[in-house]
Amino acid sequence: MDEEKILALNELLSAGKFGTLKSELAEMNEVDIAEFFGGLEPKSQLLVFRILPKDLSSEVFAYLEPDDQMNIVNSITDRELSELVDELFLDDTVDFLEEVPANVVTRVLKNADKETRKLINRFLQYPENSAGSIMTIEMVQLHDTITVGQAIETIRRTGVDKETIYTCYCIDKARHLIGTIDLSELIFNDDSVPISDIMEEDESLISVKTLDDQEEVADIVRKYDLLSVPVTDNEGRLVGIITVDDIVDIIDAENTEDFEKMAKVLHSDESYLKTSVFKLARNRIPWLLILMISATFTGRIIEGFENMLAAIAGLTAAIPMLMDTGGNAGNQTSTLAIRGLATGDIEPRDYIRILWKELRIGVICGAILAIANMLRLYLLQFVGWSSGGIHVFLVICSAMFCAVVLAKVIGCTLPLAAKAIKLDPALMAGPMITTIVDAVTLLIYLGLARTFLNGLGV
Amino acid sequence: MDEEKILALNELLSAGKFGTLKSELAEMNEVDIAEFFGGLEPKSQLLVFRILPKDLSSEVFAYLEPDDQMNIVNSITDRELSELVDELFLDDTVDFLEEVPANVVTRVLKNADKETRKLINRFLQYPENSAGSIMTIEMVQLHDTITVGQAIETIRRTGVDKETIYTCYCIDKARHLIGTIDLSELIFNDDSVPISDIMEEDESLISVKTLDDQEEVADIVRKYDLLSVPVTDNEGRLVGIITVDDIVDIIDAENTEDFEKMAKVLHSDESYLKTSVFKLARNRIPWLLILMISATFTGRIIEGFENMLAAIAGLTAAIPMLMDTGGNAGNQTSTLAIRGLATGDIEPRDYIRILWKELRIGVICGAILAIANMLRLYLLQFVGWSSGGIHVFLVICSAMFCAVVLAKVIGCTLPLAAKAIKLDPALMAGPMITTIVDAVTLLIYLGLARTFLNGLGV
Repeated sequence: MDEEKILALNELLSAGKFGTLKSELAEMNEVDIAEFFGGLEPKSQLLVFRILPKDLSSEVFAYLEPDDQMNIVNSITDRELSELVDELFLDDTVDFLEEVPANVVTRVLKNADKETRKLINRFLQYPENSAGSIMTIEMVQLHDTITVGQAIETIRRTGVDKETIYTCYCIDKARHLIGTIDLSELIFNDDSVPISDIMEEDESLISVKTLDDQEEVADIVRKYDLLSVPVTDNEGRLVGIITVDDIVDIIDAENTEDFEKMAKVLHSDESYLKTSVFKLARNRIPWLLILMISATFTGRIIEGFENMLAAIAGLTAAIPMLMDTGGNAGNQTSTLAIRGLATGDIEPRDYIRILWKELRIGVICGAILAIANMLRLYLLQFVGWSSGGIHVFLVICSAMFCAVVLAKVIGCTLPLAAKAIKLDPALMAGPMITTIVDAVTLLIYLGLARTFLNGLGV
Repeated sequence: MDEEKILALNELLSAGKFGTLKSELAEMNEVDIAEFFGGLEPKSQLLVFRILPKDLSSEVFAYLEPDDQMNIVNSITDRELSELVDELFLDDTVDFLEEVPANVVTRVLKNADKETRKLINRFLQYPENSAGSIMTIEMVQLHDTITVGQAIETIRRTGVDKETIYTCYCIDKARHLIGTIDLSELIFNDDSVPISDIMEEDESLISVKTLDDQEEVADIVRKYDLLSVPVTDNEGRLVGIITVDDIVDIIDAENTEDFEKMAKVLHSDESYLKTSVFKLARNRIPWLLILMISATFTGRIIEGFENMLAAIAGLTAAIPMLMDTGGNAGNQTSTLAIRGLATGDIEPRDYIRILWKELRIGVICGAILAIANMLRLYLLQFVGWSSGGIHVFLVICSAMFCAVVLAKVIGCTLPLAAKAIKLDPALMAGPMITTIVDAVTLLIYLGLARTFLNGLGV
């Protein structure tokens, strides 16, 4: 939505032209109204919320930021609240309740009807990130004994409040999920056809369980290009559905979590600008501390070679470059491996193939880098090319080659090993790789130096 | 799909029980059949492909890997190819043709009917990653003058081959897109209602243009929770649609690209296991080279302080730890900033707020790390705590504090600056940050050491 439109709406609001404002808003998409809403003062928010037609106001509510939702709920009457809860889809109510303080939850529950209250309470108990915690119950359920004509009749009569009518769920008398049927199948078939003849069943029937992780659910929806997926309990009874728009949000959230792990910060659900400085600092300190302390290794290694480093010119100056190059080479491999594991492109059982590939990639990259580095050192004349300088150069370039090859090997081994023993590759492997590659690079470099430069200065 | 099922199918295949195999496959989902297919020998692939009913075989074809698709196309007769192209959705044909050599494209085009050939040629000309290159033309188009009853009649008559019938597109006589209407709206309204009364139009009508970037299209589908979005040409005429399942694939691909940039490798469309070692090495060498050469700065800086480093015990040993900590602190901020910019959580205009936040976060993290480091150095007795040792410790800890604060400032400034001047933050800012933070950290550290430790050894 453009700035001009928002300005125009604000003008109508401040001029008190509520009639015009109301009809302007009624023409708009609920997502855009929510965007306009977010920029208003709390008092104006309440006013605009009350201007909106009831069905539109609940749609807008579902798209508001938690803070604004709470502001509304705290300002409206019990009766308005009860109507709002009634209009909202159950998954949106549960989403909202998961973010607010207990007293708000209590008030919302008090104003929900008995059946909804029971459902909300059950939904709030599903573990975070489980299919149960994100599903909704507003789906079309059809008994398996009816015909296409009866099914369409049922949808027309009961479908208005459903989150989707495009996939319908067929159940038997005991509410077991036994098939799904797309609305398009109903439209293209004759009224007299029994739906059991055309539904997807048995092996083609794709469903998830309430305790399945939301990431698995996302993988299934993505793999089979579904618009929605049914959720069953352990006995196979239909208890809810999850729609593709929620899956898109989950994919985004999971990706953000992966980026957080790469950034070595703890996970946070809140948006950056709304999180306090202390909370942000708290999310970042743990890994910074752990990694700093693990750098003790590199310090110790250098200490052990201090006399040699002091005696031979040019040795110390190359340390940052070697460590950075090793780190970058390892980081390339580990990031791609972690991403590949996340998308299913690679699996732990491919380890030998991957190792063999990375070994050869390491040899190629290492050789090119070593040669380029030789040229660089020569052109920039870091230390004298003549006398001892050439030996130092050779040690630096050999160490560079070994460091790149080993970084590639470590970079693919750790994530796959973590995955194989069911640990999170991004969390376990990422930070360890830097530390290990750093230490190994230094040991190779200084070890080579001690072996080959012994006569030069020590 | 489980391993057992695949084994059972393979047994049917090798036993030559094609009748049973055919009926087993007909029960399965096309995605699972494609998975089974991927594990077969080329010869068996052709056999299975021919066993499948025509409509199912084209659905399976769309889910195959490009290599397997090419194997099929190269093995079937012209007549079979012509039938296949006829059954495929246009976007799947175009996807496939974008991956194969020119001679295969020519053969496919030769076997398509004239109208399809014209369309394919036009689609292949849209720029990569544009809305035009990923859209399909199999959508339901309704003239704005008809009623709900006529609309449903049209859908039943012409909808079978459409990629989605759940959103229908209303056009005027000149084919301008003037509205969209959900199938659910048609179902819940009376047959006699004119569709122009209930369609989404004007401001609620959401569409994209053929040359829009696919990332923008994904943002719109995600924001408005759409099942499909219409694509128009510059004159506003409807030319195609993009469905949500393709959007999910695009979100995945865009995220993978962001991970590749973080890993500092060039983008590759192919799956890791199928890419040759040389190509993988080629994708990784450029950034490794650039970053190695940029490490010349750090080398030069250390060279300038070589005498001091040689003279004072303990100074050199702290270099890797300081650089790693600075790098990690900067990396935390830059990764979160790059991700925040990608999801729209933050924008360049928030720079001052973000800078102020990061400055305070830097002070908190820097102080905690400096204190922790002091303890660590004391406990591990790196160099003598008495005599000059304490001064070295103080310099190391002060440098650590300054490095963390500066890393946070640089880490948020560069990505936002890149975005503000329309450069890709992940590509421009990521690699530069390491180099700049490294150099700045070293300069602060060695500068502080020269200033305060002058009397100790130099």
